[in-house]
Formats: sequence, structure tokens, C-alpha cells
Amino acid sequence: MTTSVPHLTTAMNGPILELEAHLLANQMLVEAWFREQWLLTPAPFYASVDLRNAGFKLAPVDTNLFPAGFNNLNPAFMPLCIQAAQAAVERACPRARRVLIVAENHTRNLFYLESLETLRQIFEQAGLEARIGSLRDDLSEPMEVDLPSGKQCYLEPLIRKGDRVAIGDFSPCLVLLNNDLSGGRPAILEGLEQQIIPPLSAGWSDRKKSDHFNHYHAVAQEFAKTIDIDPWLVSPLSLQCGEVNFMDRDGGECLAVNVENMLSLIAEKYAEYNIDKEPFVVVKADSGTYGMGIMTVKSVDEIRNLNRKQRTKMSSAKEGLVVDNVLVQEGVYTFETLGDQGAVAEPVVYMMDHFVVGGFYRVHTSRGIDENLNAPGMHFEPLAFAQPCNTPDKQDMPDAEPNRFYAYGVIARLALLAAARELS
Amino acid sequence: MTTSVPHLTTAMNGPILELEAHLLANQMLVEAWFREQWLLTPAPFYASVDLRNAGFKLAPVDTNLFPAGFNNLNPAFMPLCIQAAQAAVERACPRARRVLIVAENHTRNLFYLESLETLRQIFEQAGLEARIGSLRDDLSEPMEVDLPSGKQCYLEPLIRKGDRVAIGDFSPCLVLLNNDLSGGRPAILEGLEQQIIPPLSAGWSDRKKSDHFNHYHAVAQEFAKTIDIDPWLVSPLSLQCGEVNFMDRDGGECLAVNVENMLSLIAEKYAEYNIDKEPFVVVKADSGTYGMGIMTVKSVDEIRNLNRKQRTKMSSAKEGLVVDNVLVQEGVYTFETLGDQGAVAEPVVYMMDHFVVGGFYRVHTSRGIDENLNAPGMHFEPLAFAQPCNTPDKQDMPDAEPNRFYAYGVIARLALLAAARELS
Repeated sequence: MTTSVPHLTTAMNGPILELEAHLLANQMLVEAWFREQWLLTPAPFYASVDLRNAGFKLAPVDTNLFPAGFNNLNPAFMPLCIQAAQAAVERACPRARRVLIVAENHTRNLFYLESLETLRQIFEQAGLEARIGSLRDDLSEPMEVDLPSGKQCYLEPLIRKGDRVAIGDFSPCLVLLNNDLSGGRPAILEGLEQQIIPPLSAGWSDRKKSDHFNHYHAVAQEFAKTIDIDPWLVSPLSLQCGEVNFMDRDGGECLAVNVENMLSLIAEKYAEYNIDKEPFVVVKADSGTYGMGIMTVKSVDEIRNLNRKQRTKMSSAKEGLVVDNVLVQEGVYTFETLGDQGAVAEPVVYMMDHFVVGGFYRVHTSRGIDENLNAPGMHFEPLAFAQPCNTPDKQDMPDAEPNRFYAYGVIARLALLAAARELS
Repeated sequence: MTTSVPHLTTAMNGPILELEAHLLANQMLVEAWFREQWLLTPAPFYASVDLRNAGFKLAPVDTNLFPAGFNNLNPAFMPLCIQAAQAAVERACPRARRVLIVAENHTRNLFYLESLETLRQIFEQAGLEARIGSLRDDLSEPMEVDLPSGKQCYLEPLIRKGDRVAIGDFSPCLVLLNNDLSGGRPAILEGLEQQIIPPLSAGWSDRKKSDHFNHYHAVAQEFAKTIDIDPWLVSPLSLQCGEVNFMDRDGGECLAVNVENMLSLIAEKYAEYNIDKEPFVVVKADSGTYGMGIMTVKSVDEIRNLNRKQRTKMSSAKEGLVVDNVLVQEGVYTFETLGDQGAVAEPVVYMMDHFVVGGFYRVHTSRGIDENLNAPGMHFEPLAFAQPCNTPDKQDMPDAEPNRFYAYGVIARLALLAAARELS
């Protein structure tokens, strides 16, 4: 178990210290506000949220409703996960005794299979029989995969039987999706009498990042008002362009205008807070994930002068989804680094129901502070959070470990709430 | 943080290994059964349960609905406590932002005050403002007590304002009792418009141990049927005598008969399981706590020949409550010991809502395996559970640490369920 924690390597950490101190001082208000919100809009079953800590702001950049990476969490906090999984099952389907986990298709990714097996074990320890079903056409019989951890992952073909899906005779009332449906809504999962959690509509085939961030901005506004802060400190500015065709040079004019607007909006906020950094924006596909179709831009000319390779890259996302709607988002610097090499470290926070159950840092040694770490082929080392996110300590410094992790947990829950509203 | 775990020092651990193996093998059934039960009868807000592990049986001997000893829990599992406290508050009083904890009166007991302050901090970390009110007549202004841990405990006089209680202007909707009301139901707490949790009726002024164990036996029967075991493996036999006057020699005849019956009932079970031990019974006041009015008996003659001192001791319990109803209970040996000295170790399991949040052993070096360790003036060393109770590991041995702790958690929850039915 590791105990190292990244350092904030920026002189401009005043606002974050202030934010962390403010969250601590207002913890009672923060938690009461969340409790109230969860009564109004129940949390999704589970989620992970990617955060960026720039020292002057702390914001979510991606909310995953079909989280992988459970294997990267600190084993010391598995009890928290198990307890939260029990609470989540009790709320979603209290009489469930078994759960069928529907996996992603990338069965060759051993990291993903480690996560899947960890997730399965969480449910087993919570007292549910849990098995993993695969949607892959080429999987006609069960497959056992040996994992680097020494565990085995057992994948079984999912079959349809009338209005139910099953693995052989195993056809429980609770079907847990761990597949983000980037490839579309599979026919085998449509019109089931079983309860699918999260619902098919939470998949990337239906979901748009711009919807999520519209909800996020509303959530951040309400939250900021409640504890009296500038909502910009916890949210990235966002704009959306519809119908961008990257292969057609004229199709990008809306995008260019929005990038230009976004860069000047960021510049204004930087000026307000005396931040001596160059603004940048992130352009990404409005649907989909896995970091495909993502671009970092510091000047509108970069958009106007895209070469053919860049255009092609932006035109396709995971599993061939064609990009047409595009999200233009304020880029948030990552000023958390680890070790002498200054490896960039980005927190990812995990939640089950509305409980924060842990997280880890994506640590990357060879990538810049303004780039996307969750990009295809990018290698990162996971560094499990050394402490849980629910033990704030008012007697300690605002940026002491438990308090920084608490702040992560608060911002991640704001994104979770946005996702809850998105799904409701 | 300690990692030592007591050993079972008996050759007769076959049944327990079998029970632990059986609980593991049937974990899914066990947890589904509990989920179903909590839907029917919600768990009390919190509780601690004293267990005895005799190697051939594992049973609860006391269920405390106003637990102290939170300071003895493993700090590593405080996150579990905090998460469970959040769940408990959400169920009991979801809009609560503040909680007033009503303390026991023994303000000179620093161990108790450490527990109280730990409990207060759990609520603070869970996001509720928490303050401690005292019922003591002689406390007219706030008192700050320095604790051995270096913390401070701040006690404030509880006052009545119309239909509410308060500490100064602090009068939250949620009043949490941490006082077992052995001295009776205080007038100041009657007829409040605030929600008192647990209710006054959960205090020893109203509660009878025999009621609890009647419910426990029903629970144990149902549970045993569900997973197909002999209920005796998880429950102490109990009989109740009304109107026993220890000061009057003739008043104890019902008691003598019941002790005799109980001893032969135990002997039958010992014969059935080939247990080569002398049966003993525990005679205790049907109300009250703190180990007063408790007696260990191996022969009916001991009851018939009580001396004056013993009679006086049995006639009074905490705060002068007169003993009249008496519980005659199968004595359960403690065969868990620690270290070369063979110090007796008894597990105490803590729960918030229906979640097991940890526990500790009462370790005692100078007391026998058939005596009550929670007796007045008895000194024990707390030894925090090294592992949580919700991480059973089917790949490991049935008596491996996580599995033994899991078994503790199952039996403790049976007692919790009995208490839930008792209060409903």
C-alpha cells in the first residue's frame, strides 16, 4: 500500500487552499445540501469522475457512469466499497440475491478484466452471487482469463430468453451494466423485464457530454450559492457546437468561433484571479469516451489549420462513432505532480450510490500538464488514494491529506449529482 | 494499530469451524435474509453486542442500544463508521443538520468521555454539527474535560424549552440518546416534539433482557432454519423468573428450579455435541446493565446457599434499580485467549443502522473463562479488531481472520434484529 501523495506544484494555490478551507468550514452545509439533493434526485448506482486540480481551481472533466478501474483502488478501503454496494443494492433492488454484470467488449484488456473481477468480488462480499456476461458475438462459450494479479476472470456469453437475458440458467432480476454502449444500444438488452442499472439511456449511445456539463453548471451554480463561492472555482466553462464536420473545412466555423470565445472567457477569469498562465481549450466529441476525438487548443488558428491526420482523428471516436456534435471546454491545468520527475497526477474518484468509496491518481511521466491523460495508448501508473475521502479533519491544515481528499470527494459528488439529474 | 488476534484455545472448535464454514458457504443466503429482515423491521440507530466464542458455539450475551466504547474501535475503520452514520441519519431523519447527543451521567469516567467525543466526531465528519448535552443536576454550566487521548470533551447542561430540549440556543430536530436510562425515564425527555433516537422505550427503565432474548430466540430459529443449522449453535438458552426477592430466602424458589432446569438442558446439549465441560448458568437482573447483579452458577446449591453479601449484590443494579425480575441464561464459555498468559478475550461488535462498523476485544488477564468480563470495577484492555467484519473471503480458511470477523458480524446482526423487533 502506497502512502505517497502528489504535490501541488504551482505558486497559484491560493484559491484552492481557500476553497479547501471553505469546504471544511462549511462541511455541515455541504453535507446537508447533498443529503437534500439525493432526496430529490437519487444518485446513479455507481460512477467515477476525473478531476483536474490546477491549484486555482478544482473541476471535473469527465463523469463515467460505467466505471472501470476498481482494481486501482486502495485495498484498505474495500470495506467502504462493500458497504456502499450493499446500500446501493438495497436502494435499487432490495430483494436481489444475484447480479449479472454486463461487461465491455474489450476482453483482451487485462486491466479492464482486473477491474471487472474486483467489481464482481465486491458484490460477492456484499452477499450477492455475481457473474459476468459478455455481449461479444465471437464468445460462444465461457472463457477463463488468467489475470496479472493471479486472479481469474470468468466471462460467459450473454443470451436472450424471451424478455430476459441470462448466462445459462442464471437470469437474476438485477442486470448491472458495465458497458458504456459506445457502439450503440444492443438489441439483446432492449425491452427486458429485468431491471437494468444504470439504464440503457445512460450509455454513450444516448448521452451527450454537453447535457452532462449543462447540468453540472446548474449544480455548480446552486452549490456555489449555498456556500458562497465563485462557481468557476469548481467548474470548467463549456460551449457546444452541433454538426461539426471535421473533414469539411467549412464545417468548423462554429467551432472556431466558440474556441475563440472560450479562450477569451478563460482569459478574463485568469485576469480576475491574476493567473499568469496561457488559457487553453479542450475540444472533444460530445458522445463517447476513451479519449478518442479529443484535442487541446491554445489558439483558434490551430482549429483553422488542422491537417488531414488531425481531422481524421477528430472524426472518429470509439467503435467508429462519427463525431458530429462537439464540446468546447475550458482546459483545466493539472498542477499535481509526483516525485522528482514531476510526473503529472490526475485524481479519479469512485462512488457507489452517493458514497465516495475511494479513488486513485493516474500518474504519467511523459505528458504535459495541459494534455489529456486518458488518451488511447497512453500509459499511466495508478496510485491509489492513501486515505478515504470522508474523513475531513478541521483541526488539520486545509490541504492536509484527509482534507484534500475530502475536497475531491465533494467536487466528484457535484458531478455525480449532475449525472443523476441527467438520468432522471 | 494492532494486528494480533486472539486464538481459540479449545480442542472443541469443530462446531465453530463448521459454523464459520457454513456461514461462508451460505453467505448469499445470509445477506439476502438480512436484507429482507431490515425491510420488515428497520435496524436501531446504533448498537453494540457482546459475544462469547466457546469454540462449539458463538452467541450474543448482551445487546446495548446506547453503545459506548467507540474510542476502542480501530481508527483505520472510522471511514466505515462515518459512512454508516450518514446512512443511519438519512434513514432516521434525512433533513437533520445538527444532532444533540444526550450523554450518560458518569462524567468522571474518562473512558466513557473518550467514547462520547469519538461519537461526536463521527457525526461531525459525517457532516452534522454535534454537541453533547448532560442530564446531570449538578452541571449548571458547560464543562470541558481533558481526555487521556489529548482531546477535549465538552459537556453542556441540557435544558427544556417548551416541547424541546436544548443546549443554549442549540435545539436540533435530532436528539440522539447515549444514555441507557437505568435511572428511569427523565421528565426532561418526555413528550418532546423533537425526534429522540433510539426512543425512550429502548432504555433499561422499559426494556427487559428476557424480552430481548425471547426475540433473539425467534430470530435464531428463523435464521437457523434458513441456513439449516441447530439454533443452539448461535443462541444461549434462556429462562425468566418474575418477582425474585433475593433478600427473602423463600423468594428464590422459582430461580432455583429454573437454574436446575437450565443446567440439565445445557448438559443435554453438551452430551449431544460430546462437549466435556461443566455446564454453568448466568443469573442476571432482567433490566439494567454495567454488570451489576450478575452471578455465575454451576450448581443449584449455590443459589440455595447465597450469603448475605451475595444477596445484597444481586438485589441492586445500576443507580439503585431494585432487581425483581431475573434472567437465567446458559453460560457460554469464552475460549478465545490472547498471548502466553492466556488472557481471556471477548469480542464486542459495533453497528450503525444495519451496518457492522467494527469492534474490539475486551482482554482480561486475571479472570476465568466462565466469568462475566463486563463487571463493575473490572479492568480490561481493549484490542481493536484488526480487520472489518464485512470482507469474508471464501478462498481462505473458514477461521481465517476476515472470516472469523464476518461470523462475529453475522451473529451480532442477529442480536441487532432481535433488538429491532423488540423496539418495533
